[in-house]
Amino acid sequence: MNDIPLVASTTYAHTHTEVFLEQYKDFLRIPSIGADPACRADVRRAAEWIIAEMQRIGIEHAQIIETEGQPAVYGDWLHAGESALTVLLYAHYDVQPVDPLELWISPPFEPDIREGKLYARGVIDDKAGVFLHLKAVESVLSATGSLPVNVKFIFEGEEESGSPAMGPCIETHRDLLAADVVVISDGGSADEYPAMMAALRGIVTAEVRVRGSARDLHSGSYGGVVHNPTHLVGKIIAALHDDEGRIQIPGFYDAVVPISAAQQALIAEDEARAIARAREVTGLETFWGLPGYSYLERATAQPTCDVNGIYGGYQGQGNKTVLPAEAGFKVSMRLVHDQDPNDIAEKFVAFVNSFACETLKLDVQVYSRSWPAETVITGPVVQAVIDAYTVTWGHAPKMRRAGGSVPIVGMFQHVLGVPVVSLGLSHGSNGHSPNEYYDLEYFDKNMDTAIHFYFNVGS
Amino acid sequence: MNDIPLVASTTYAHTHTEVFLEQYKDFLRIPSIGADPACRADVRRAAEWIIAEMQRIGIEHAQIIETEGQPAVYGDWLHAGESALTVLLYAHYDVQPVDPLELWISPPFEPDIREGKLYARGVIDDKAGVFLHLKAVESVLSATGSLPVNVKFIFEGEEESGSPAMGPCIETHRDLLAADVVVISDGGSADEYPAMMAALRGIVTAEVRVRGSARDLHSGSYGGVVHNPTHLVGKIIAALHDDEGRIQIPGFYDAVVPISAAQQALIAEDEARAIARAREVTGLETFWGLPGYSYLERATAQPTCDVNGIYGGYQGQGNKTVLPAEAGFKVSMRLVHDQDPNDIAEKFVAFVNSFACETLKLDVQVYSRSWPAETVITGPVVQAVIDAYTVTWGHAPKMRRAGGSVPIVGMFQHVLGVPVVSLGLSHGSNGHSPNEYYDLEYFDKNMDTAIHFYFNVGS
Repeated sequence: MNDIPLVASTTYAHTHTEVFLEQYKDFLRIPSIGADPACRADVRRAAEWIIAEMQRIGIEHAQIIETEGQPAVYGDWLHAGESALTVLLYAHYDVQPVDPLELWISPPFEPDIREGKLYARGVIDDKAGVFLHLKAVESVLSATGSLPVNVKFIFEGEEESGSPAMGPCIETHRDLLAADVVVISDGGSADEYPAMMAALRGIVTAEVRVRGSARDLHSGSYGGVVHNPTHLVGKIIAALHDDEGRIQIPGFYDAVVPISAAQQALIAEDEARAIARAREVTGLETFWGLPGYSYLERATAQPTCDVNGIYGGYQGQGNKTVLPAEAGFKVSMRLVHDQDPNDIAEKFVAFVNSFACETLKLDVQVYSRSWPAETVITGPVVQAVIDAYTVTWGHAPKMRRAGGSVPIVGMFQHVLGVPVVSLGLSHGSNGHSPNEYYDLEYFDKNMDTAIHFYFNVGS
Repeated sequence: MNDIPLVASTTYAHTHTEVFLEQYKDFLRIPSIGADPACRADVRRAAEWIIAEMQRIGIEHAQIIETEGQPAVYGDWLHAGESALTVLLYAHYDVQPVDPLELWISPPFEPDIREGKLYARGVIDDKAGVFLHLKAVESVLSATGSLPVNVKFIFEGEEESGSPAMGPCIETHRDLLAADVVVISDGGSADEYPAMMAALRGIVTAEVRVRGSARDLHSGSYGGVVHNPTHLVGKIIAALHDDEGRIQIPGFYDAVVPISAAQQALIAEDEARAIARAREVTGLETFWGLPGYSYLERATAQPTCDVNGIYGGYQGQGNKTVLPAEAGFKVSMRLVHDQDPNDIAEKFVAFVNSFACETLKLDVQVYSRSWPAETVITGPVVQAVIDAYTVTWGHAPKMRRAGGSVPIVGMFQHVLGVPVVSLGLSHGSNGHSPNEYYDLEYFDKNMDTAIHFYFNVGS
């Protein structure tokens, strides 16, 4: 590989750090909270900011893709030649809500640098994924006049809301988005080791409502003759798991198979760290779950069915002798391997409906469904990522299975049918909390990582 | 019986109706919400208003009895002679909270007469019990210079809060309160038939809290490894009843025996009315409960265990993928016959603690305990009540078992060891709802009922 274009590119990036940071602050000032209807115009403003930036630096076909939800942003640069790979770079420009606002030291949308850290909502999650790719591409294009790889960008505006409109969007624009590999730039690390997502669980969320009487009743007058909806809620929740924690929804485990030896090896390597971290976060000494599996297998390679909230009747101080008219619960099921979210949603609904009775009304609503995903963890593209991190950070990345879900990953895999690779460009913390920050020591390093990746994968 | 003093007394009452109503409005203006700490001074003001009224009309030993909770009010008139009975007249001067305030047509503490109805919080529940006895006694004393029966008054200020301090209060003042019979004047009727309570269920209320992690967790990161407190809440609630509704707390039914033939007869008589009323209130066609028992047996003669509220995790719109740190439920158990509230409370706590596990913390708190009670439904004192109603209302009273609880009744039975008779002096509706009213057509009738009762029982 001829190193001159690479060095020219990173040199360009380093000599523009100050300019880039000022531009980044402009981007961070836009309160693009996708979940907040009051921020609708701001979300679009953020999309338009990206379009303008793409046009300025030489990205082609920069355009807003309208969806049923928030606008997505597309752009491409496809002149690397027919033999070069085409990579679809993904990040999201929507950000988490800011509550509780009073805990922020500087206002969330007034970027502030303190002790080498840039504080702002979205600065690591995930405006960094958008911005650093744009600046990396700008650096390469400015320094060399071309890119070593064909690049398409897809930036979404509703990742923090579960990407409800992105499945249909990808489906509709599958030709426009066609690529050899998808690179997910969401997340990063908080220590000296870069991190790569090796797997994500899918998710189905739902709510069950149980209704009895037309109104809340006095438990003295009607206790013993009116069926109490909280009791049926209890029966259903109790039936979700056996005493060892095995999920009892018929057919729930049908598509769950043992993970590969390679994924198993990742888990074994990370087990002690994960448990130590969990002890710190939860304050617990003893963990829970299916016997026969390690902590990380249970946390990332086994499905779950967790009640996220239960409600019904009186919740204030002391007691009130009410027989509630209604009760219910919210649930999230995490899926693994080949568990199809639509199939699981159906099985959950059927399971709940098996509790139907004459004296109470049951209602189940499914909110979201997304596929589990295992990212590619071997092969030339992954090696390009590993090499890029290793050179720029001085450490090879830690590859980790995540227990959480990034719905877009499963969508890319299932709709586009291409492998997905993880390349996070953030370094910092508090992505979903007050005082989100980016550790600026890693700002240039991560731009370098992106630039190295383009050259590695293009060579 | 010489009718002259009786007629003189009722005549006095009737010629003073307007004056009495103005005085009643003064009493109703005092917002004596016993459960609201902000009304503490008003509760005492109501007690003092009663004392002043007692002193004015010739009741002796009028005094506030301090308790651990709200003040009780005592007074007596004991000059009917040694051979005369002594009756302890009970009512409560505290009132229900007023929420939702916006549904009141006239403000709850600004008494307002519309179409023959007097609207105010507490006007039937249960300032009427206090006020009408005072006015009936005033009428008899003013018209005849004496009473035909020895009378003691005990008016409490925390009935709507479950009378937590009244047990010890009655215990401490058992000599002062000693009587041949207790007359409970709480409640009344909403139709042309006077109503008498034949039985009340006891009650134990409690709350169960289940705690896991030190904080709410992400259900993706910790689902499968951290025990979810809502799941244990579900298991405990589900275990409370079998599929037919039979309570599964070991020993719960030990002291439940079949009701007497006389009480059984009352139930049979009232069954159709009770079901019709329940259909109207609940909007339900099909009722629920233990097979083998009639509706009213289940509603009044069988114990219950009803969850009054469940809580934990996210309760807003849609879903949030949280694994809650804490969940819990509130419960009320209605007791019958010889079920001892202390024994039942112990059994409930033991039952809940049988779900203890290493991965979650369980906490049970018992809030209140009161005895079931069957009032006297035959004998001379009851006949005195029946005759009083029959003459003044034109109908014999309907004697009904109640499914609810009036803790003070069990306290009187168990601490004083005397029979309890029911003599409600209200006629109206919405006792625990907005727009509580007294139907003034029955204001004089109920004063007459009280006066007739004094003469009947004294003769």
